[in-house]
Amino acid sequence: MNARQPEQLPLTRSSVLAAHDVIKSRAHRTPIFTSSSLSAGITAGNNLYFKAENLQKGGAFKFRGASFNLSRLSHEELQRGVCTHSSGNHAGALALAAKERGIKCFVVMPSNSSQVKIDAVRSYGAEIMFCEPNAPARAATLAMVQARTGATFIPPYDAINTILGQGTAFLELSEQVPEKLAAVITPVGGGGLLAGTALAAEGTGVRVFGAEPAGADDCARGLEEGKRREDVDANTIADGLRTPVGVLNFPIIQEKVERVIVVSDEEVIEAMRLLWERLKLVVEPSSATAFAAVRNPAFRELGIKGPIGIILSGGNVDMSKPLPWVVL
Amino acid sequence: MNARQPEQLPLTRSSVLAAHDVIKSRAHRTPIFTSSSLSAGITAGNNLYFKAENLQKGGAFKFRGASFNLSRLSHEELQRGVCTHSSGNHAGALALAAKERGIKCFVVMPSNSSQVKIDAVRSYGAEIMFCEPNAPARAATLAMVQARTGATFIPPYDAINTILGQGTAFLELSEQVPEKLAAVITPVGGGGLLAGTALAAEGTGVRVFGAEPAGADDCARGLEEGKRREDVDANTIADGLRTPVGVLNFPIIQEKVERVIVVSDEEVIEAMRLLWERLKLVVEPSSATAFAAVRNPAFRELGIKGPIGIILSGGNVDMSKPLPWVVL
Repeated sequence: MNARQPEQLPLTRSSVLAAHDVIKSRAHRTPIFTSSSLSAGITAGNNLYFKAENLQKGGAFKFRGASFNLSRLSHEELQRGVCTHSSGNHAGALALAAKERGIKCFVVMPSNSSQVKIDAVRSYGAEIMFCEPNAPARAATLAMVQARTGATFIPPYDAINTILGQGTAFLELSEQVPEKLAAVITPVGGGGLLAGTALAAEGTGVRVFGAEPAGADDCARGLEEGKRREDVDANTIADGLRTPVGVLNFPIIQEKVERVIVVSDEEVIEAMRLLWERLKLVVEPSSATAFAAVRNPAFRELGIKGPIGIILSGGNVDMSKPLPWVVL
Repeated sequence: MNARQPEQLPLTRSSVLAAHDVIKSRAHRTPIFTSSSLSAGITAGNNLYFKAENLQKGGAFKFRGASFNLSRLSHEELQRGVCTHSSGNHAGALALAAKERGIKCFVVMPSNSSQVKIDAVRSYGAEIMFCEPNAPARAATLAMVQARTGATFIPPYDAINTILGQGTAFLELSEQVPEKLAAVITPVGGGGLLAGTALAAEGTGVRVFGAEPAGADDCARGLEEGKRREDVDANTIADGLRTPVGVLNFPIIQEKVERVIVVSDEEVIEAMRLLWERLKLVVEPSSATAFAAVRNPAFRELGIKGPIGIILSGGNVDMSKPLPWVVL
């Protein structure tokens, strides 16, 4: 892990504001979507505002963290390129951010990655190294890549600059919404987006929530037990959330996030269908997790009054597969 | 057909500009989408600009024509309400526009309409009358509704105010695009959108094209033969385009549209998948027809230089069905 971490702990909202100044010329300021039919029936008076990060470059919020990480590298580091391990949105985002800067990018992917994800990373010009689909093989392959190339490792979530970059989505959301948000909710996998959002919301009075699928609810369990869990089941359709929450991310979430709402895959699929049908947006299951949480009784019982922001984290869906709600 | 037609023929670009002044406070100014990967490889230098009318109220451009029609009704006519026959986007658009004005709406639908379409029209508060799925039964039922209620018939495409309303999408598109369009293309079913676009583009130097599926290519055939065809096959996945081009629409298209490009259903499905994957937008097959046409050799051979506007007409897809490109 040789990513530079020039920011000092503790991180603050100011750190996220500074990150936004750096990346705003590189990332899309994604639009906000509303739907009276989706807002109706949540709780009285809760207008919902969806931040469409599925329309971000690379199809997910991950481009923000990747961009901010690259902005902190020296000229020499940029010359040697960057590397990461991921089979998902972070790999695509880093590859695209590297391509836009004209630097090299190396991605370690498990050999059983889907062709559509391999194609996406390759289309952004990254060099792919395949490894056996397990953690030791991944670490060994990444170490080999670093030794050979001198590339800087850009972590997908467990890094200060990644967290700060992801938090910038909330800053835009709160500027774009015409009224004061009462709450914001994001999905939580590794916790980059949720921790960044919690930092960005600090002192604003906006209550911050996370949403996690029951099949990968290590963050919610960790919060209950008062201790980060190092393991995670990965038994959920929300493929972007099948990671344990990060070492840096967990204490930020523990301190600043009011609650992580756990939802079933059935709720995720139903929420995903509603988003596709009503917003006409292609969002991936991870994104639908946040909307599913807002529809869940555990959230409704909080009785939050006022507008709610929901970050739709990404839209990278394998279109060669049947829609999850279509019974075959 | 008792819809008032206060506009004088011949229609001009000014008529569309006047219609836009009337409806712009009621309809969404839908956003423009771009994609470097979709633009790449069309023809050298053709930036593509997609006007996302799938994000229009009711999920399709049809809300524009419905709104403009309602704006031309007298207080007495509004009191009696409006009616139409449609199993598609026009019915939903009219029902929603009527609901927003607090007036009654009656919709004649074939008894074999899909449940999802029935539910959509009903959710906007319209009263539905079912009829046998054939033209005489439809006309008889509509006449009965009009006799009973005094409601004004708002035609789906073959009416001046409908054409003028639909043309307003192009006015916004040309304002929103940061460079001068070389061409614009829209799908053609009844021809409301295409005729309206051709009127709106008149004198601007923007070349106007239509796109039609081979299984319902009555407009392209009519143009070849120099005479409107009254019949149409309806053998295409593009369910919004299974209507013959209108009596009022055809001569406008004949005079002002450079060419209608015909594409196969295979091309439509491929284009639809690309739009879902790259733009992250849910668009219906009819919308994809226009993008398919731009990718077709017949269009490429025209050698158009400069930016091309594509109107994505709607996003009302029956999500209970498998995606058309997923082989089961």
